[in-house]
Amino acid sequence: MPVRVAVLGFGVVGQAVVRRIVSVPGPLELTHIFNRRIASKRVDWVPAPVVWTESFDEVLAAEPDIVIEVIGGRTPAGDYLRRAIAAGCHVVTANKQLMAYEGPELLAMAARHDVRVGYEASVAGGIPVLCAIREGLSGDDLLEVSGILNGTSNFVLTRMAEAGLPFDDVTREARERGYAEADPSDDVDGHDARAKLCILVRDALGLDVRPADVHTESIRPIRPIDFTYAADLGCVIKQVARAVRHGDGVLAWVRTALVPATSPLAHVTGGQNIVILRGASGNETVLGGFGAGGGPTAVAVVSDALSIAAGSPLTSPGGRALRPAQVVTTARGAFYLRFIVRDRPGVLAGITSVLASHGVNVDAVLQAPGLPKDALPFVVTLEDTEAESVAAALDQIARLDFHVVPPLALPMVG
Amino acid sequence: MPVRVAVLGFGVVGQAVVRRIVSVPGPLELTHIFNRRIASKRVDWVPAPVVWTESFDEVLAAEPDIVIEVIGGRTPAGDYLRRAIAAGCHVVTANKQLMAYEGPELLAMAARHDVRVGYEASVAGGIPVLCAIREGLSGDDLLEVSGILNGTSNFVLTRMAEAGLPFDDVTREARERGYAEADPSDDVDGHDARAKLCILVRDALGLDVRPADVHTESIRPIRPIDFTYAADLGCVIKQVARAVRHGDGVLAWVRTALVPATSPLAHVTGGQNIVILRGASGNETVLGGFGAGGGPTAVAVVSDALSIAAGSPLTSPGGRALRPAQVVTTARGAFYLRFIVRDRPGVLAGITSVLASHGVNVDAVLQAPGLPKDALPFVVTLEDTEAESVAAALDQIARLDFHVVPPLALPMVG
Repeated sequence: MPVRVAVLGFGVVGQAVVRRIVSVPGPLELTHIFNRRIASKRVDWVPAPVVWTESFDEVLAAEPDIVIEVIGGRTPAGDYLRRAIAAGCHVVTANKQLMAYEGPELLAMAARHDVRVGYEASVAGGIPVLCAIREGLSGDDLLEVSGILNGTSNFVLTRMAEAGLPFDDVTREARERGYAEADPSDDVDGHDARAKLCILVRDALGLDVRPADVHTESIRPIRPIDFTYAADLGCVIKQVARAVRHGDGVLAWVRTALVPATSPLAHVTGGQNIVILRGASGNETVLGGFGAGGGPTAVAVVSDALSIAAGSPLTSPGGRALRPAQVVTTARGAFYLRFIVRDRPGVLAGITSVLASHGVNVDAVLQAPGLPKDALPFVVTLEDTEAESVAAALDQIARLDFHVVPPLALPMVG
Repeated sequence: MPVRVAVLGFGVVGQAVVRRIVSVPGPLELTHIFNRRIASKRVDWVPAPVVWTESFDEVLAAEPDIVIEVIGGRTPAGDYLRRAIAAGCHVVTANKQLMAYEGPELLAMAARHDVRVGYEASVAGGIPVLCAIREGLSGDDLLEVSGILNGTSNFVLTRMAEAGLPFDDVTREARERGYAEADPSDDVDGHDARAKLCILVRDALGLDVRPADVHTESIRPIRPIDFTYAADLGCVIKQVARAVRHGDGVLAWVRTALVPATSPLAHVTGGQNIVILRGASGNETVLGGFGAGGGPTAVAVVSDALSIAAGSPLTSPGGRALRPAQVVTTARGAFYLRFIVRDRPGVLAGITSVLASHGVNVDAVLQAPGLPKDALPFVVTLEDTEAESVAAALDQIARLDFHVVPPLALPMVG
């Protein structure tokens, strides 16, 4: 019995999805392709019976078994999905913002209408992480999820480290090579990773965390000198998304962090993604691959549709209920503090005496030779410390008069 | 409605499985624990209603929904599973040898009896790779599967590389630390990895490959000097299992190989495992974690049982039929040839002239300074070459009179 599928959106991802559906043998039968200005979208490699339409009513009237949404953005994609669910269609979506902001409500609505929602493609593209959480690791008690969830930021940081170039130059290159959008703010400021982290936290930890609750920092303040100092410390710099059970709540943030060169996070280069799941029984499981792009995203979308066609429940077998959780944004840890100062006698004494007055212990001071005195970058690393003490000390240090740019504090993880 | 579960085998894995079943909330209800000499196995942390028995007839008579087999070995475990399937029970097994040698027959029998077989734990322990193949990557067309599938061999090679110690010393240490069995032959000679590769090839590539068809080499001939030369080439040495579609057939082998230090394979240390799946659309997906041990194996076993309880079909949604495939054991590639010789003028000329006579091009010759002349280890690397030409040349070179040990040829992958 063929399973009738409509695809909403015929951009890069939509085309890749349609290519897989029409080329892979199996139960999926493509019936509709929906897009604005559909006449300009038509291609000759899609089989003739497929209906090309710009009317969502026409799609719904045909009563497809599965509606695939690869339009992106919360509106109107969310409205289409709600109407599809209300009409009794299963839905598959690659829409991370929609799932991050409205996922629990969509899933509850789907449960009421006895249909399933596949959203593997909304997190880390082609990496089958939600499937691993839902099935392969369902027998574990997951305690932590962390990862590199944004390929653009990772590309930018990787290139900055390799080429020693500043953020603006590398971001321009990333745009030219198609690795970054015209406005890469969502990626480099961490909002994209934050959305994906919320989805992961719900599925892996059973905690309902919303994007606004997640402390998020931009990679923009990172400078080439930071990679040099990080290397001296045996580390690389990555945009890390992390969530750990913390009592009844959860510590969750997206930050630029120092990662030991031996960590699986450190080996993720260019546009790749990684997710690390830590469980009480199975310890660390690492999943890596391509987090974006038409091909990998299409694999996730079509795999969800095939799972629905095969009768997979697409929910965690344990049926864990989602519960709201207090989000903690800071915790004890080691820190990398980078200062760029107009050098003069007393600068280091000024900084270290403020740190000492807050009970913060210095681990090391790094200053590379031959750097300009009028904008001297140097680093102070801190031993395992309460984040609040570090923040209070930095607040006071930032008011001293020798800074060329505001002090930068990066957590050292792992 | 609780799902009634019987566990066969109460060793390290069986105990970890039972601990998870009794501690994780969910639908699984443990009814029986079966083991030889059951009186000596009884522990007080298992709830009272559970029946401890050494009679498999008693287990079957209770009509459990799921029979979990964590005894290991093909006999009598295979007989128990066949009887359970015939009695209409779903089964879950961690038994790689059974699944490698008899998997297709067991799955066919299960299909006839309309029951499901979970065997996630039989490959790479806690890493949810079969789940990823079955669901998360089902929309892709998988072309290649490779990995590090044996933790013992990886521990031995990692320690040899770190400590510069010979195979025998490190293997003794691995035994003492519980990373190797009294007789580690199955692990270090590649038979364990070969069994897992066969299961992966069937599920990922849809090709029926049997263990005897897979070319398998031992890690025993590796010496500390090989790690030094490999490092000079920017590589590490790993026991690699690899299968690639090759026309209608498949290239499949387990070999000790040189892997570039930048490969995901290179970062797998100690007892960890990794699986890399390459698909036509999604490119490379990497899954890593703990390949053995009670906790990770129990996660895989209990996850399978939960999936069965939730009604997951546990089969590839596409329903790909398994087809027999011709196994190719050699292919073109670059090679590392290591010789240990009684040095005298003409040794290198003798070797390189034989290589030239077979049309084999030398890429580099490496000889570290200060090595003993009576047992001089040196290396010749070969450019991309037909494996048959290399084998023929080596055969002839091995008959020359200056060898202290037989020449060693390792493929250079990636």
